[in-house]
Amino acid sequence: MAHHEVQDEIVERIQQRILNGMGLIVLHSGHFSKIFRRMMGTNCSLKWREVGERERLWVVSPGHPIAEGLGEYFEIPHTEMYGEFFDIPKPDELVFISWFQGGEVFRSGCAYYRGKGKVFYFRPGHETFPIYYQEEVQRVLINAVRWAAPINGPYTDLAPANRVDPIESFEIQD
Amino acid sequence: MAHHEVQDEIVERIQQRILNGMGLIVLHSGHFSKIFRRMMGTNCSLKWREVGERERLWVVSPGHPIAEGLGEYFEIPHTEMYGEFFDIPKPDELVFISWFQGGEVFRSGCAYYRGKGKVFYFRPGHETFPIYYQEEVQRVLINAVRWAAPINGPYTDLAPANRVDPIESFEIQD
Amino acid sequence: MAHHEVQDEIVERIQQRILNGMGLIVLHSGHFSKIFRRMMGTNCSLKWREVGERERLWVVSPGHPIAEGLGEYFEIPHTEMYGEFFDIPKPDELVFISWFQGGEVFRSGCAYYRGKGKVFYFRPGHETFPIYYQEEVQRVLINAVRWAAPINGPYTDLAPANRVDPIESFEIQD
Amino acid sequence: MAHHEVQDEIVERIQQRILNGMGLIVLHSGHFSKIFRRMMGTNCSLKWREVGERERLWVVSPGHPIAEGLGEYFEIPHTEMYGEFFDIPKPDELVFISWFQGGEVFRSGCAYYRGKGKVFYFRPGHETFPIYYQEEVQRVLINAVRWAAPINGPYTDLAPANRVDPIESFEIQD
Repeated sequence: MAHHEVQDEIVERIQQRILNGMGLIVLHSGHFSKIFRRMMGTNCSLKWREVGERERLWVVSPGHPIAEGLGEYFEIPHTEMYGEFFDIPKPDELVFISWFQGGEVFRSGCAYYRGKGKVFYFRPGHETFPIYYQEEVQRVLINAVRWAAPINGPYTDLAPANRVDPIESFEIQD
Repeated sequence: MAHHEVQDEIVERIQQRILNGMGLIVLHSGHFSKIFRRMMGTNCSLKWREVGERERLWVVSPGHPIAEGLGEYFEIPHTEMYGEFFDIPKPDELVFISWFQGGEVFRSGCAYYRGKGKVFYFRPGHETFPIYYQEEVQRVLINAVRWAAPINGPYTDLAPANRVDPIESFEIQD
Repeated sequence: MAHHEVQDEIVERIQQRILNGMGLIVLHSGHFSKIFRRMMGTNCSLKWREVGERERLWVVSPGHPIAEGLGEYFEIPHTEMYGEFFDIPKPDELVFISWFQGGEVFRSGCAYYRGKGKVFYFRPGHETFPIYYQEEVQRVLINAVRWAAPINGPYTDLAPANRVDPIESFEIQD
Repeated sequence: MAHHEVQDEIVERIQQRILNGMGLIVLHSGHFSKIFRRMMGTNCSLKWREVGERERLWVVSPGHPIAEGLGEYFEIPHTEMYGEFFDIPKPDELVFISWFQGGEVFRSGCAYYRGKGKVFYFRPGHETFPIYYQEEVQRVLINAVRWAAPINGPYTDLAPANRVDPIESFEIQD
C-alpha cells in the first residue's frame, strides 16, 4: 500500500545492485513494487479477486532447480486470486502456472536474468491466510534463493559504456 | 547527447503508449535513450570504438519477418563498433548478430514483446558514415516497422489492476 | 490412432520441408504425431480426461499476431482436457494458457521458429464436440496460418554443412 | 565421422534418459551426432573452415552459472571455425557468442531444458589443437556438468499420456 512512498533514488540504487549481481525475490503483491516494475519495464498489472478460493500451482519446468523437491503440483486451499493477463516480459524461465477455482490462470513462478543478477517472482502470499507456513511454499523460497545467488562472473560495474581498443591493428579499406 | 534532458514525465507517457500497443524502433545510440532503458529495465551499456572498421551482420533467425529479403549476412564497410556485453534482457527474438573486424560481437537486431506493444532495437547507424543509405539497412527498417505495427488485440488499458468475479459461484471448503 | 503407421521416411521429408521454410500447424491430438515429436525432440506427453468439462483459453501475449481479433479469453463449453506437464520445449512465443474446470492448466498456443520454418501448436479440437465451428477457434487458425507463412529469406537448403573461405587473408600468429 | 553407425534404437534410449533427467553435454562436432539432432529437432548444420584462425568467446549472460569464474571473454589462439547460421532451436539460455578472425560469428554456448533433463552445447574442440587443455575451456566444462546435473523433481516417466480424474465432481452445463 505504501509502494509510492519508496523514493526513486533508492529504487535506482537497488536496480544497480541487482544488475551488478544481487538476487531479487519478489513475492505476491510485490508485483506492484517500484523495484519490480523498474526491473521489468512494464506495468505488472493483473486481475485479482479475494474470496478464499483454491489454487493449484503446476510445475511446467520439471528440471529447473526451483522445482527441486516438489511434486507435479501443489495446492493452496484458500488464496487470493491473481489472473492473466499479467503485464510482464516473457519469463526467461517459467517454472509454475497457477490454476484458480474461479476460472483464471497465472504465470506464478517467473525467473529472469538481468545484467549480472537474477530476479524471481513468486505469486503466493497473503496477510491472513497461512500460505508461508506451507512446506511446498517454503521449499520454493529456499530453492529460489539458491538459484538467485550471485556467481563469481565477469564485470565489476555494468553501468558505463566502455571505450575499447581493437584486437590488433588492421587496415581500413576504402 | 541530450538524453538526460528528456523529461521523466514524457518517458512515462511514451512507455504507456508502447505497453498499450504502439511499436518502438530504437536505432544505434538510442540504446542509451531514457525510453529504451525504461522499457528494458537494464543499463543498456556496451563497449564501443570508432575507427571506421568493417561490420558483418549475420542473420540468425532466417524465418523471421524482419529478415525478409535479406541474404545470409550483409556488410557495413565503415562503422562505429558496439560490443558485448550489451546489458539488455535476453531478446524474445534475436534476428542479427554482428561481427566486427577488431574482435567484438554484438546482438544487433533484438525484438521484444512488451504489454500489447513491440520493441525492436537495431544497432547500425552513424552521424557521418552513410549507413542509412544502404539498401539492406533500409530493408530491415521497413520490415521492423511492419513487424512492430499494432494488432487489434485484447485490452484497452494495461495499467490498472482489475477486480474480477469468479466464473461461477462455488463452495469454499475448509 | 494411426500415428505409428506413418513411415519414418515421410516424416523426414516433411521435417526438411519445414526447416526449409514451410509452416506447420498442429492441432489437438496431433501432439502425438511423428512429425510434431520429431520437430520438438521431446515426448510431447501430457495428462488428459474426457468428461466434457469447460475450458477457458487466456491470451497471455496480447500483442502477438495470433491473438488478433480476440478478447481477453474465450471459452469452449465442452472439451476434452489436456493438462500439464506438457513435455515440449519452452515455446518461443506462448500465446494461450488454458484453464480447465477440473483443476488443470495447459500451454495451448505454442509458437516455434525452426530452421527457416515456423510451427504452431493449438490445443483445442475433438471428434464430436463442435469446437472447430467456434468463431474464435477459426480466428486463431486463420491468424496462425498467416503467421506461419514462409518469408523470402536467406538459405536454399539448410541440411548441409558448408565450407567457407575467410573474409580476407590474414596472418596466423603462433 | 561414424555418426551414421550409431543405431537409432540406442539414440531413442538415450533420448528417453535425457528427457527423464540425465544431463547431456555436446562438444564441437557432436553437433552432427544423432542424439543432438534428435534432441534439437533440426539439422544442426553450420558453416566451417579449418585454417587455424583465432576465436574469441564472449560471455553474453554474465550471471549464468556456466560463466562462473570467467572473464569478459577468452580466446582460443588456433581453432577450426564454425559459423552461423547454426540450425538449432533458439537456446533457452545463450551463454557465449564466438568471434572468428575470418569474418564469422557463432552461438557457442547453448543451454536447453528438455523434459526433466538439460542439454548444453559447447562449440570449441579439435583433434590436434590443444583446446581442451585451456583452463577456461575446462572451467566451462566443469560448470556445465554442474548445471546439467539432475534435480530431485517431479515425474518418474515422461513418455506416457496419463488419464487423470478431475479435482472434484462438478456439474457439466449445457
